[in-house]
Amino acid sequence: MHPSVPVRRRAVAACVLAVLLGLPGLSMAAEPDLAAIERTVTAQHDVSLKRLKDWIALPSIAAEDLNAREGAEYMARLAREAGFQQVEILDTDGKPGVFATLDAGAEKTVGLYFMYDVKQYDPAEWSSPPLESRLVDKPGLGKVLMGRGAVNQKGPQAAFLGALHAIRESGQPLPVNLVLVAEGEEEIGSPHIGQLVHRPEVEEVLRDSVGVFMPYAAQDSDGNVTISLGAKGVIELELVASGEKWGRGPKKDVHSSLKAMVDSPVWHLVKALDTLVSEDGNIITIDGYPKAPPISAEHRVMVAAAAQVRSEAKAKEQLGVEHWIGDLAWRQANERLVSQPTVNIEGLVAGYTGPGGKTVLPGRAVAKMDFRLVPGMKKDDAIAALKAHLEKRGYGDIEVNVSGGYDGTQTSAGAGLIQAQRAVLERRGIKPLLWPRNAGSYPGFVFTDAPLSLPAAHFGLGHGGGAHAPDEYFLIESSNPAVQGYDGAVMSYVEYLYELGK
Amino acid sequence: MHPSVPVRRRAVAACVLAVLLGLPGLSMAAEPDLAAIERTVTAQHDVSLKRLKDWIALPSIAAEDLNAREGAEYMARLAREAGFQQVEILDTDGKPGVFATLDAGAEKTVGLYFMYDVKQYDPAEWSSPPLESRLVDKPGLGKVLMGRGAVNQKGPQAAFLGALHAIRESGQPLPVNLVLVAEGEEEIGSPHIGQLVHRPEVEEVLRDSVGVFMPYAAQDSDGNVTISLGAKGVIELELVASGEKWGRGPKKDVHSSLKAMVDSPVWHLVKALDTLVSEDGNIITIDGYPKAPPISAEHRVMVAAAAQVRSEAKAKEQLGVEHWIGDLAWRQANERLVSQPTVNIEGLVAGYTGPGGKTVLPGRAVAKMDFRLVPGMKKDDAIAALKAHLEKRGYGDIEVNVSGGYDGTQTSAGAGLIQAQRAVLERRGIKPLLWPRNAGSYPGFVFTDAPLSLPAAHFGLGHGGGAHAPDEYFLIESSNPAVQGYDGAVMSYVEYLYELGK
Repeated sequence: MHPSVPVRRRAVAACVLAVLLGLPGLSMAAEPDLAAIERTVTAQHDVSLKRLKDWIALPSIAAEDLNAREGAEYMARLAREAGFQQVEILDTDGKPGVFATLDAGAEKTVGLYFMYDVKQYDPAEWSSPPLESRLVDKPGLGKVLMGRGAVNQKGPQAAFLGALHAIRESGQPLPVNLVLVAEGEEEIGSPHIGQLVHRPEVEEVLRDSVGVFMPYAAQDSDGNVTISLGAKGVIELELVASGEKWGRGPKKDVHSSLKAMVDSPVWHLVKALDTLVSEDGNIITIDGYPKAPPISAEHRVMVAAAAQVRSEAKAKEQLGVEHWIGDLAWRQANERLVSQPTVNIEGLVAGYTGPGGKTVLPGRAVAKMDFRLVPGMKKDDAIAALKAHLEKRGYGDIEVNVSGGYDGTQTSAGAGLIQAQRAVLERRGIKPLLWPRNAGSYPGFVFTDAPLSLPAAHFGLGHGGGAHAPDEYFLIESSNPAVQGYDGAVMSYVEYLYELGK
Repeated sequence: MHPSVPVRRRAVAACVLAVLLGLPGLSMAAEPDLAAIERTVTAQHDVSLKRLKDWIALPSIAAEDLNAREGAEYMARLAREAGFQQVEILDTDGKPGVFATLDAGAEKTVGLYFMYDVKQYDPAEWSSPPLESRLVDKPGLGKVLMGRGAVNQKGPQAAFLGALHAIRESGQPLPVNLVLVAEGEEEIGSPHIGQLVHRPEVEEVLRDSVGVFMPYAAQDSDGNVTISLGAKGVIELELVASGEKWGRGPKKDVHSSLKAMVDSPVWHLVKALDTLVSEDGNIITIDGYPKAPPISAEHRVMVAAAAQVRSEAKAKEQLGVEHWIGDLAWRQANERLVSQPTVNIEGLVAGYTGPGGKTVLPGRAVAKMDFRLVPGMKKDDAIAALKAHLEKRGYGDIEVNVSGGYDGTQTSAGAGLIQAQRAVLERRGIKPLLWPRNAGSYPGFVFTDAPLSLPAAHFGLGHGGGAHAPDEYFLIESSNPAVQGYDGAVMSYVEYLYELGK
């Protein structure tokens, strides 16, 4: 059992104990010796990197049912070794999570959100074996560690744990108490994150925290940093039309000549899909679908500032896009990106999908879809509207198989968690861009929504790339002083923790 | 070079020669000794079957570019061995064909359409190796030969060649001259059949024939025979929407969150498809699309008669269908089957097609389609209408990649080719059903359309199954006297040739 004493109360008790015993907890208010910590970070470089490599060598992949228990146990061990006194593996209806607390006897408590799982990979597509964490020269960047999870998210998380090791080894006080929640299902849409965070003992210690952050390699290849204040929500689902469920058309693929007397589940799906969006595919036309709140003036200003700095030409080239939706200008396109919900077809699968043709009338057709939600729109409302819409339009037989998803998440620019980021960055001469929210998704809602209603964000210097792709990497030795390597990333967490402790 | 002397003129010359030399050509008018031929068929059973097995062991598959030249050469050898005096391999822009003539000094000439190619196969799906032609017990039927091409079309074609061997070996007169056209691209939609049939020397000898037929295992498992008077035409094509061609949306797959600012080629395809058919997917709504001629009173009577004999319940069970289009009754559904054109989606392929989901906005989407045409509708008109329709509706960027197809084909029930079939069958106590046309397709148009305007049909007793599927078979030793095995199939061709010669 995890002790049910809340961190703040335990912090007070620890302080009293520290006074009595003359422990480092006492020096909490003094300025930390950052130079000493930095020397330790340098000294621990190889050990810290070894920790990351060993972690990458153990991939946990929820979609493949691979190493969930082993991954949770390894995460628990990493937490214990980094100084968390209470570490517990929590079972869910899916993969287990890890809940850990580090009572530093500090005034403030900071929440941490980790993931121990990684995305699937195909070694054949990699130039370096994805579990071997080789150091590879990357022109213009420096030496990178290449491996699955290198940047998403084991690299930044290992750097954060390295910060805790360095602070302790330097004899410096840890300025905040920590509460860690780690899950093993992030890459499949965090279907059971609520079963971790909403356990009474977890909520109890998170409730009084200043917020929750996830370690993150925030620097682009030039060293710029964008602070995102949230993320859209997402629903992933399949729409499945079948002769079986429809009661019309064939139950299996039949010869296509029969189309003259047999209905087609593929046409049925096409007709249903057609009703979901406008002619240009860009406006949602689902009856009763939740509406996005209008973009705020503050967010609009952020987007305008970012659009001025970011290169439209570079974005178009990277994406292979010649025109934005409706031929919008760059700023307006970015405004749409952060403020509008989407209905997207990820994939279509029906009948014969190989080379050439095959004269079949398929018995089944599938649209793989994702729906992005602006904070304020509720996932459950969106699914209910979709189902009611299909039913009303004569497509009630089409299966709506929701595989995952969650609501959006939003944090105020004024939150202490965000202000501390800005302070750390500006002290280093980095002027971060503020961004209303990621168009992509992460399960921050579990922290920012009631009952916790906490700020949540990502933070960390350093750079990486190739998340979800082959040759994923995390920068270890940077050839550009404006971009931090591994030790610089570790130090950014040290500085952030001390800033949060103020 | 193939001799350019037409068969009829050569036939006359041969007759004169026969009179002078006392050759069998003389006995043309006498009644043939069918009993003697049947004894020879029995005696030649093993040799004839060996010929079929050797043929199956050499699969020609146009889609896989496999054994086209070898298949044509083998076909040419089979023709020569069966008595064709002139045999020539004809090159086309695709796979070569075979043109052969057998001058029997007869009054009448009969055309033959053969295919030497077979459908693709995956040995892993077969219960018997698809090239080994093993004899397998099939409960309720007897011993069947199992192999790729067994029924489609090498088995029936080998049985026909067996008939020629048996007639010659028995010293009986061949009652008709023969013209054979064999192609190696039937299974990919006969894209170059016109380059074979419309060569001057081929047209010249075909022109005066009574018509063209293809050997065929016409009996169902109860021994019933349906004579089909034609077939629908077909077009196979892919509609491809892409960011590349559209100039909107991404040129490759990008992250699905970008849907808020980037157009989707998948939605573009869905919207285009939606305009092609009515809400129920069953009425073609392509602007300016050719219309099907109304079904004739004669064909309507044929359908009504067939619908009375055939079991609706059995058809529904076999197809896994509960309702016909528009809840039509059995007879009306069959009328629709033979008389209405179709627009069918064979397959949909876009973006991520594996298990689960993947958050991509795909750069490309493909609909694999087939369009069935009723005789009277022209393939080229249909394609032109489709392209104009897409252009007019704002989908001119969507590629229309036609991979094959041809017009429909129709033969009159009064044609000698058909009347001879009925006579042979009725003499054997089989009352055939007449059927206006197959809903499926075969390239009979090349014979029935101008300039040749010949009757064309399929004929043959015997039974088989599994065309295009694993475990394809042709019945060799029948356990049901009403269903012919291999030797019975051979004799059906003997009888048909003598009937045609009358």
